[in-house]
Amino acid sequence: MGLSPEIVEKIKNSFARQAMMATMQAAIASIGRGAVDLTSPLPDSCKQQHGFGHAALTFGLGDSAAGYAALTVMPPEAEVLTSEMKIHLLAPCAGDQIKARGRVIKPGKRLVIVQSDVFAITGDKETHIALMTGTMVPVLPK
Amino acid sequence: MGLSPEIVEKIKNSFARQAMMATMQAAIASIGRGAVDLTSPLPDSCKQQHGFGHAALTFGLGDSAAGYAALTVMPPEAEVLTSEMKIHLLAPCAGDQIKARGRVIKPGKRLVIVQSDVFAITGDKETHIALMTGTMVPVLPK
Amino acid sequence: MGLSPEIVEKIKNSFARQAMMATMQAAIASIGRGAVDLTSPLPDSCKQQHGFGHAALTFGLGDSAAGYAALTVMPPEAEVLTSEMKIHLLAPCAGDQIKARGRVIKPGKRLVIVQSDVFAITGDKETHIALMTGTMVPVLPK
Amino acid sequence: MGLSPEIVEKIKNSFARQAMMATMQAAIASIGRGAVDLTSPLPDSCKQQHGFGHAALTFGLGDSAAGYAALTVMPPEAEVLTSEMKIHLLAPCAGDQIKARGRVIKPGKRLVIVQSDVFAITGDKETHIALMTGTMVPVLPK
Repeated sequence: MGLSPEIVEKIKNSFARQAMMATMQAAIASIGRGAVDLTSPLPDSCKQQHGFGHAALTFGLGDSAAGYAALTVMPPEAEVLTSEMKIHLLAPCAGDQIKARGRVIKPGKRLVIVQSDVFAITGDKETHIALMTGTMVPVLPK
Repeated sequence: MGLSPEIVEKIKNSFARQAMMATMQAAIASIGRGAVDLTSPLPDSCKQQHGFGHAALTFGLGDSAAGYAALTVMPPEAEVLTSEMKIHLLAPCAGDQIKARGRVIKPGKRLVIVQSDVFAITGDKETHIALMTGTMVPVLPK
Repeated sequence: MGLSPEIVEKIKNSFARQAMMATMQAAIASIGRGAVDLTSPLPDSCKQQHGFGHAALTFGLGDSAAGYAALTVMPPEAEVLTSEMKIHLLAPCAGDQIKARGRVIKPGKRLVIVQSDVFAITGDKETHIALMTGTMVPVLPK
Repeated sequence: MGLSPEIVEKIKNSFARQAMMATMQAAIASIGRGAVDLTSPLPDSCKQQHGFGHAALTFGLGDSAAGYAALTVMPPEAEVLTSEMKIHLLAPCAGDQIKARGRVIKPGKRLVIVQSDVFAITGDKETHIALMTGTMVPVLPK
């Protein structure tokens, strides 16, 4: 099933209004039904004490990718909130860029279960650096 | 049991080298044995699409507070890595500042279990905005 | 605020219908608003290969305590489902009995955030053996 | 890379000593490197108040499958402990049997990150009922 242009537009507009995404120099790589990919070039402003990307960068990119993936299975007027999220950090956040692949595991009217996998990419080598699972909640206008 | 000045110094130095903490305008509020508090004034660069602090800000502050709390119960030469962390977001990240209270739940040689509670503070009112639990790992020089 | 006798009765009836609670020889120790305690004497049928209580025993008791705690803040006609739960196992499940203390962290119409702490009790010594946080969902009759 | 007969034997012996697995009428379906499958026919003694399998049954089967999967990548003399585990319950635990597929996500000397997916099986229909991620720790003889 395709994705309506309105929902794609809604996600692009929401993403453009997130200052944190700009701080992370993040970009939308793809938007599909139940699947959104985001990338970031690991800006210096988001690093930790050893020069790797901070866990907050990995978390933020993965959380946003999962949230937008969830938004694609919600009603057009819904906004999305993260209720909870767990992250396993599997390898250092280092490379040319990182990519977060957000996926809907189980859609639902009241909550949407999501997974995000984050990869560090250097040349054509991808390393799985984080595995995240969480709960997204639709927020409807009153 | 008191905390050695060397460990306090080590935490301050590590914190000062974290660019992400500077981006979040974070500051160390207190360092005690198994207990570290960090604050952030919610800079505009860390907001999401509705003007609240981004989940990555809440996560990053809570994760760092928990990591430094864990560092106080590790050998002096250890560095600390987050292995996994779960965050429940309880209320919007809005206020004059947020404060993360990292605590050691169970110290150990191979892993340290931690909790972080994040509060939004406006005037003298504190709102509990996030509950986090996670696993920190000591990294020793070879 | 007190708890209506109807809700106490509802919880006792639901508990009595859970075969798994009988298998765990579990009992209700107390029911309060947003707070339910359950106990189990660690039956042999619920042990693991080293003679300790199995993680499923600790999880099951903590999950049920948290679920019933959530039920006390839901409408009288609601049933409760666990959506997700994380458990940190802090110490071996060994002793005369274990006690799970379920607590509501944040009530809500669509989801209730809960915490459960499980203790092993021997004589008058309590050991904290598990820390759990999770999401409970009310299910209303159609 | 194959799996030594000693490790297969060690897992079978450990499984046979777990009273909780007998209570769950669980059986080993397969053992491979970093991958162990367990099944259970949903015994009445492990049900909850609506006649579905209790979350403790789903958790216990998934946790054990993941733990034995982790054991296949540990030294032959190691025992395994669950440090933490998160479970998302995706659908009711109902069917002819349930199957838990434990997998190693990231092996390591000090901790092994695992995933478990649990399915309810009725005839040839499989329903994904739980997604679990966790941390397993090797315990070596002193």
